[in-house]
Amino acid sequence: MDNCKIRMAMVGGGEGAFIGAVHRIAARLDGQIELVAGAFSSDPQKSITMGKQLGLAPTRCYDDYHMLLQSEAALPESERIHFVAIVTPNHLYFPIAAKAIEYGFHVLSDKPATLNLSEALQLQTLLQQTNCLYGLTHTYTGYPMVKEARHRIATGELGNIRKVVVEYSQGWLASEDDEQSKQASWRLDASQSGISCCMGDIGVHAANLAEYVSGLTITSLCADLNTVVCGRQLDDDGTVLLRFDNGAKGVLLASQIALGEENNLTLKIYGDKASIEWSQMEPNSLWLRMKDAPAQLLRTGAGTLCHAATNATRVPAGHPEGYLEAFANIYLNFAMLIQARQQQPDVQPEDFDVPSIQAAVRGMAFIENAVAASAKETKWHPFNIG
Amino acid sequence: MDNCKIRMAMVGGGEGAFIGAVHRIAARLDGQIELVAGAFSSDPQKSITMGKQLGLAPTRCYDDYHMLLQSEAALPESERIHFVAIVTPNHLYFPIAAKAIEYGFHVLSDKPATLNLSEALQLQTLLQQTNCLYGLTHTYTGYPMVKEARHRIATGELGNIRKVVVEYSQGWLASEDDEQSKQASWRLDASQSGISCCMGDIGVHAANLAEYVSGLTITSLCADLNTVVCGRQLDDDGTVLLRFDNGAKGVLLASQIALGEENNLTLKIYGDKASIEWSQMEPNSLWLRMKDAPAQLLRTGAGTLCHAATNATRVPAGHPEGYLEAFANIYLNFAMLIQARQQQPDVQPEDFDVPSIQAAVRGMAFIENAVAASAKETKWHPFNIG
Amino acid sequence: MDNCKIRMAMVGGGEGAFIGAVHRIAARLDGQIELVAGAFSSDPQKSITMGKQLGLAPTRCYDDYHMLLQSEAALPESERIHFVAIVTPNHLYFPIAAKAIEYGFHVLSDKPATLNLSEALQLQTLLQQTNCLYGLTHTYTGYPMVKEARHRIATGELGNIRKVVVEYSQGWLASEDDEQSKQASWRLDASQSGISCCMGDIGVHAANLAEYVSGLTITSLCADLNTVVCGRQLDDDGTVLLRFDNGAKGVLLASQIALGEENNLTLKIYGDKASIEWSQMEPNSLWLRMKDAPAQLLRTGAGTLCHAATNATRVPAGHPEGYLEAFANIYLNFAMLIQARQQQPDVQPEDFDVPSIQAAVRGMAFIENAVAASAKETKWHPFNIG
Amino acid sequence: MDNCKIRMAMVGGGEGAFIGAVHRIAARLDGQIELVAGAFSSDPQKSITMGKQLGLAPTRCYDDYHMLLQSEAALPESERIHFVAIVTPNHLYFPIAAKAIEYGFHVLSDKPATLNLSEALQLQTLLQQTNCLYGLTHTYTGYPMVKEARHRIATGELGNIRKVVVEYSQGWLASEDDEQSKQASWRLDASQSGISCCMGDIGVHAANLAEYVSGLTITSLCADLNTVVCGRQLDDDGTVLLRFDNGAKGVLLASQIALGEENNLTLKIYGDKASIEWSQMEPNSLWLRMKDAPAQLLRTGAGTLCHAATNATRVPAGHPEGYLEAFANIYLNFAMLIQARQQQPDVQPEDFDVPSIQAAVRGMAFIENAVAASAKETKWHPFNIG
Repeated sequence: MDNCKIRMAMVGGGEGAFIGAVHRIAARLDGQIELVAGAFSSDPQKSITMGKQLGLAPTRCYDDYHMLLQSEAALPESERIHFVAIVTPNHLYFPIAAKAIEYGFHVLSDKPATLNLSEALQLQTLLQQTNCLYGLTHTYTGYPMVKEARHRIATGELGNIRKVVVEYSQGWLASEDDEQSKQASWRLDASQSGISCCMGDIGVHAANLAEYVSGLTITSLCADLNTVVCGRQLDDDGTVLLRFDNGAKGVLLASQIALGEENNLTLKIYGDKASIEWSQMEPNSLWLRMKDAPAQLLRTGAGTLCHAATNATRVPAGHPEGYLEAFANIYLNFAMLIQARQQQPDVQPEDFDVPSIQAAVRGMAFIENAVAASAKETKWHPFNIG
Repeated sequence: MDNCKIRMAMVGGGEGAFIGAVHRIAARLDGQIELVAGAFSSDPQKSITMGKQLGLAPTRCYDDYHMLLQSEAALPESERIHFVAIVTPNHLYFPIAAKAIEYGFHVLSDKPATLNLSEALQLQTLLQQTNCLYGLTHTYTGYPMVKEARHRIATGELGNIRKVVVEYSQGWLASEDDEQSKQASWRLDASQSGISCCMGDIGVHAANLAEYVSGLTITSLCADLNTVVCGRQLDDDGTVLLRFDNGAKGVLLASQIALGEENNLTLKIYGDKASIEWSQMEPNSLWLRMKDAPAQLLRTGAGTLCHAATNATRVPAGHPEGYLEAFANIYLNFAMLIQARQQQPDVQPEDFDVPSIQAAVRGMAFIENAVAASAKETKWHPFNIG
Repeated sequence: MDNCKIRMAMVGGGEGAFIGAVHRIAARLDGQIELVAGAFSSDPQKSITMGKQLGLAPTRCYDDYHMLLQSEAALPESERIHFVAIVTPNHLYFPIAAKAIEYGFHVLSDKPATLNLSEALQLQTLLQQTNCLYGLTHTYTGYPMVKEARHRIATGELGNIRKVVVEYSQGWLASEDDEQSKQASWRLDASQSGISCCMGDIGVHAANLAEYVSGLTITSLCADLNTVVCGRQLDDDGTVLLRFDNGAKGVLLASQIALGEENNLTLKIYGDKASIEWSQMEPNSLWLRMKDAPAQLLRTGAGTLCHAATNATRVPAGHPEGYLEAFANIYLNFAMLIQARQQQPDVQPEDFDVPSIQAAVRGMAFIENAVAASAKETKWHPFNIG
Repeated sequence: MDNCKIRMAMVGGGEGAFIGAVHRIAARLDGQIELVAGAFSSDPQKSITMGKQLGLAPTRCYDDYHMLLQSEAALPESERIHFVAIVTPNHLYFPIAAKAIEYGFHVLSDKPATLNLSEALQLQTLLQQTNCLYGLTHTYTGYPMVKEARHRIATGELGNIRKVVVEYSQGWLASEDDEQSKQASWRLDASQSGISCCMGDIGVHAANLAEYVSGLTITSLCADLNTVVCGRQLDDDGTVLLRFDNGAKGVLLASQIALGEENNLTLKIYGDKASIEWSQMEPNSLWLRMKDAPAQLLRTGAGTLCHAATNATRVPAGHPEGYLEAFANIYLNFAMLIQARQQQPDVQPEDFDVPSIQAAVRGMAFIENAVAASAKETKWHPFNIG
C-alpha cells in the first residue's frame, strides 16, 4: 500500500512501560514510519495483547525478539521491517541489538546503550562489520534550541568555551515508597540496570548533552556519587567535575532524590564572547548572552535560527513544542537516514544528526568512569574508553 | 487490516497550509485514527500529489470534496471513512460540512465554524436532522491545564466568578509585508474569511476559552475593533468588554499587530475564593491563588489533577507537552466519541469534551456581535444569537 | 550643621500609615534630604509621639499643619524647611498644599493630587502665581526601566506607537473583610477619597504611566467601572478603553478585587518597529522586541541604558532594586530640583523628571472622565480638562 | 539633638567605591543610624572631600582611621560613635577592626572578615576579651525569604536535609579588560585580597548562605578552583563539593567568568519531606515544594511568613524590595543589637540575626580550606579551623 514508509518493529514497551509509549508516539508523529511488528513483553501473551491493541497484524505480534527477528528476516524485502526499536530494561539492549544486526536490521535503541562499556564496544565492533545503522535516543539532542545552541557554538559565536554546567535533577526517587513502580524497580536493580542508577539513567543524558552542544570531549573527571536513600544498591545522586579537551572546566550535577524537581535538565555554557542557557522544561527558549549587549531570547519558530533547528520545528513561534516532538525528531532523522542510506552507502548517523554508536560508547564510558572515579580517593582521573 | 482505527478524510491542507499539517500530526499522534482519503487542494493535481506524499492509496486521493464524499460513501462500511476533517479557508467550511453530513459522515472542522452566523445556525439545524457528529477544533481547550482550570471552577474552588480577563496577542500581521503569506492573504480577505480578521481568527478562540473554562455564558458586550495597518478591509486588533450570565465582568483583548508577541493567549479568572492564571506559551503550568495562602503552581503530569487533565497528558511532569498534543487531545476525544456512538446513540460531543456545534454557533455569534457592537455609538449590546 | 541638605516637613504619615513610612525611607535613602518637622496625625498627641520616635526636635513636632506652616515660616531661612511632603488621605491634599504654597513652601504630594479636578485646577492656578515647586509621587515613573522605556520610545526605536495596554491588578480589596484596615476604610469613603476608589487609587497610576512612557496624550475614552463587592459606594474594578493623540489605541485595566494579585502593574506598548513590556513586580527587567530579531532583555545596571535610567540606579546589574528605590528617585530628583531652582529660577519639575502639576491635573481629569464616561450609555467621550 | 540614633563612623568607602555607598544607604534607610564620622580614603584630602559631600562635621572627617578612633574615643559618650563600619579592601579589615576594638568600639565589617584565617582567629580572641560587638555584612542573609527558608528548615518542614546546591555566578571578570576597574584590580591582587579572588569574594557568601539557611555545618570538602583568564594570580572560578555534619551532600559553584551572568546567587536545599529554592535576582519569592503537593510560591509581604521574615519586610507584597533593603536589615539589626546590649550585657549578634565572628571565622576557614584542597591530589579533606 504505501511503500515509502519506513517499517519498524518494537522490542519491549509493553503495558505500563513509560518509554515504549513515548517511542511509539515519536515514531508516528510525522507519518514517515509505520510500526508493523513487535515483541512487547517477556510474557508472550502480554506481547500479543499489546500488539493487537496497537492494531498490528496478528502474525507480526511475536512471542519474543528471537521469533521477531527470524520471522521478519524471512519476509520479502518489501514487507519486512527496516529497523528494530529497543525499549527494554538496560540489560537486554545488547543481546537484542547484536542479534538484530546479525539479521541485518538497523537498530534504534533507548539509552544507555548497553549494560556496560564492554558490551558497547562489542556492539561498535559488530556494527563496523555490517552495513547496519545504529541510533541512540538521546532525546534532548532532538530539541530545536539544543541544535541552535550547538550551532552557535560551532560557528564561534561564543568564542572559546571555558565552562560547561549541566544539571539534571529529578525527585521521583526521593522516597523509599517511590521504588515500587515498574520504572523504579528495575533501575535500582544492578542486574537489569548496570552499575549505576542515577548516572546511568540521567547523568548519561547530561554528559551527552554537554558534549553534543559544546562540541567538546570530556578528557578527565572527578566524581562523587551518592546513595542517598538507605538500602539501595546503586547511586541515586551525584556530581561529576569535568575537564574537556580544550581545557574547559565542567560541572555535571545529577540527582533522582531532589524532591520537588520534575525533569530539570539545564545546560549553561560560557565562552569568552558569549554564553548560552537552555532548560528542558522551557525548551522553546534559548538565552544568548553576549558581552556588553542585552541578553537575547532565541525562540523556536522565530525566523533567524539555523537549518537544523528550523527543520526540527513543526509549528510557528509561540505554539509550544515539547518532549514528544524532540523525540520524534530523532525518529524522523533516523528514518531519513535509512532512506538516504539506500542511495548513499556511506551516509552516517551524524549526517542526519542521529546520536550514534560513538555517542553510545562514550555514554557507557562516562558511566563506568564516573563510578570508578567516585570510588577512588584521588581526585582526577582520565576519561578512559576500553 | 486494522479494523479498530477510525478512518478519516481531509479536505484542504495542501502544500504550505500550516493548519493542515497540524491536523494530520494531531490525528496520527495517538495511533487511533488513520488518514485514508483526501481532497487537499482546489487544484486536483496538487491534491493528488499531496495524497501520494502522505502515502494514501491513489484511488483515495480525490480531485475535490464532492468526489471524495461521493466515492467514500460508495465504499463498503468497513473501508469507508468515518469522518471528514475540514481545514480550508473559512468560506468553504459550511458547504463542505453540509455536504459531508448529507452523505452521513461525521465532521471535525477547524474554526471559526463557518463564514457567518447564519451558516452556523443552518449547520446546527442540519445536524439535528441526522446522526452525524460534529466537532470543532478549539485547540486550546485540549490542554490539560485548561481542563484542570475548568474543573477547579466547576467544583467551586474559586467561589463565585467575578472577573475574566483573556488576552490573545500576536504580532504576525504587524506589517504590510506580513500580508504576503498564504496564511495572511485569505484571512484579510472578507470573501474568504468573513466579516472579521482578528476576532474571527483569534478573538473567537479567546471567547470560547473564557466560556469553556469559566462555565459562564456571555450575555452582553461592548466592542472596539480596530484596523491598525492601513488599507486592510478587516480588523486586525480589538478589545471587547463582556458581561456574563452570573453578572461577572470580562475583558477580551485580541491583536494581530502586537509586534513581538508570538501566540500569547493568557487567561485569568478571579473568583471570590481563588483565582487562576494560565498562559498558552507555558501550557503545562496553572497558577492557583487562594485567599490567604501561598500561590500554588499546578503542573501537568503531577499527581493531583482531575480526570480530564490526567487523561489529556501523555508523559510525566517535567516532560513538556505542547500545542500538537493539545490538538491531538481533540482528535483523540473525537475518535473515542465516534466509537462510543456506535454503541450508545445518544452520546454527545460534550461527553467526550469535544467542542460542539453549540460552541460553533456561539463562536460565530461572538464574531458578529463584536463587529456589530463595534460599529455602534452606544456602549453595551446584548449578545444575540440569530 | 549640614547646610547642604534639603529640609522637609511631613504632613500625615502617623502610626499605621503605610505610605508615610515609605515617603520617609525614600527621603532618607540618598542622604540629600532631612526630615526636620512634621504634623503626622490629626490627633496632636499622636503627632508628637511620632515626631519623637523619628528623632525630630520637640519644637518641630506640630499639632497640625497650620501650626507647622506658620512656625516653620517664622524660622530663619537657614533652618526652616524647604518643602512639605503630604501623605494624608486625598481630601486633605488640596487645603494643605494650597496653604503651604501660600507660605512659600515647595510641595511634594502623594497621589491623586486632590479630591477632585476642580481643586487640581485651582492648585495649578495658585502655583502659577508663585515660585513654589510642586511634585507628585507617581512612584512608578521612578523606576530605571520605566525611564529607559520612555527613552526608547522618545528616540523612535519603537516607531509609530499603535497600542498601549496597561494593567494594574490588586487583590487586597477582594473581600468585605478587607475593608476593616485603615488603608481600605478611607479609600472606600467618598468624602475622604473622592468619586473613585479603584481608578483614583491605582487607575490614575496606570494612566500616568501610559502617558509618561508613551509620550502620548489620552484624548478620548470609554469606561466601564464596577463595584464588585456589594455595599461599596465606589468602584473597586474597571476597564477604560483609550485613544491617544496620535491615533493609538489603549486599554487600561485596573482592579482591587483581583484576588491573588499583589501589585501587578504591567505595561505593554506596541509600535510599528518594536514593542516594550515592563512589569512592576520584576522592575529591573525591560523586554524590547524588535521586528525580525530576538527579543532583548534590558536590565537595570547593565551598560547600555539611557542617562535617566543609569542615574536612577544605585547598584550593579543583578543586585535588585525595587519600590523604595523608585520612590527615592522621585525624592532625590525633587531635592535636586529645589537646589537647581536656587540658581536657575526657570527650572521646572520636568527638567528633573519629577511628575508635575500638569500630571496632577491630568490624573484628576482621568479619574473624573472615567467616572463620567462609565455612567453614560454612549461609548466614547472626549477627555476633558476643566 | 537626637540621642536615640546609633552613631557610626565609616572607614573606607571613598569616591568610586561601590560597597561604601551601599553601606551608607543601608545605614540611612531606616533612620536608626547616623553617620557622624569617617576616614574614607587612604588619601586624607579625598577623605575630607568625601566627608564634606556627605554632610559630616568637618572636625569628624579624619585623615586616617588611627585619628578617627583616637579622636572619637576622646569625645564625650553622648557624642562619640557607637560603631565603625569597615569597607576597605580585605587586607585592612583586621588592623582596623582590631584597633577599633582596642578603643572599645563595636565593629560592622564587610566580608570576607580578614585577609586570612589566622587574622580571623586573632580577631575572635580579641573580641572574647572585650565587650565589643562584631557583625559581618553577609548581605544575602538579610533577605526576608532567606530568613523564611531558614525558618522552614529549622522547624522541620523540609525533614532531614539531604542535599544543598548553591551557585554564585557572575560574569564581570570574564575578560582581561574587566581588570581595569577599581573593584577588579584589588580583588585580583593577593596582597590586598588574600589567597583567593572568586572564593574570597563570592564563594564565601555562598558557603555562608548554605550554612545559614540549612542550619548545617560543612565538615569536609573537595575543591576545584580555576584561574580561567590567563595571567591572573588568583582563582576566578571554582567548584567545591561539600559534606555537612548530618551527612548531607553539597555542591557550591562560584564563578566570576560566567559571561552574561549578573549576580546569580541561587540556593536549592532538598530534604526528605520538601525542598526550597531561592534566587537572589528574584529575592521576594521562595519556592517550597512538598512531596505530592503543588509547589508553593511564598512571597515577601504575604501573610504567612515567620517573624524574622516579616520584620525584615517594609512594604506590602508586590512592592519589590531588593539588595539595599537586605543590606539595611543587617544594619538595622546591628543597631538594635547595640541598643539591646546597653540593657542586656549578654545579648549576642545571633539574637538579632547578625552574622557574627563565628561566621567570620568559618568564612575565612572556608576560603583557606578550599584553596588548600584544590591544590591536593586527594579528593576529600576535612574542614579545618585553625
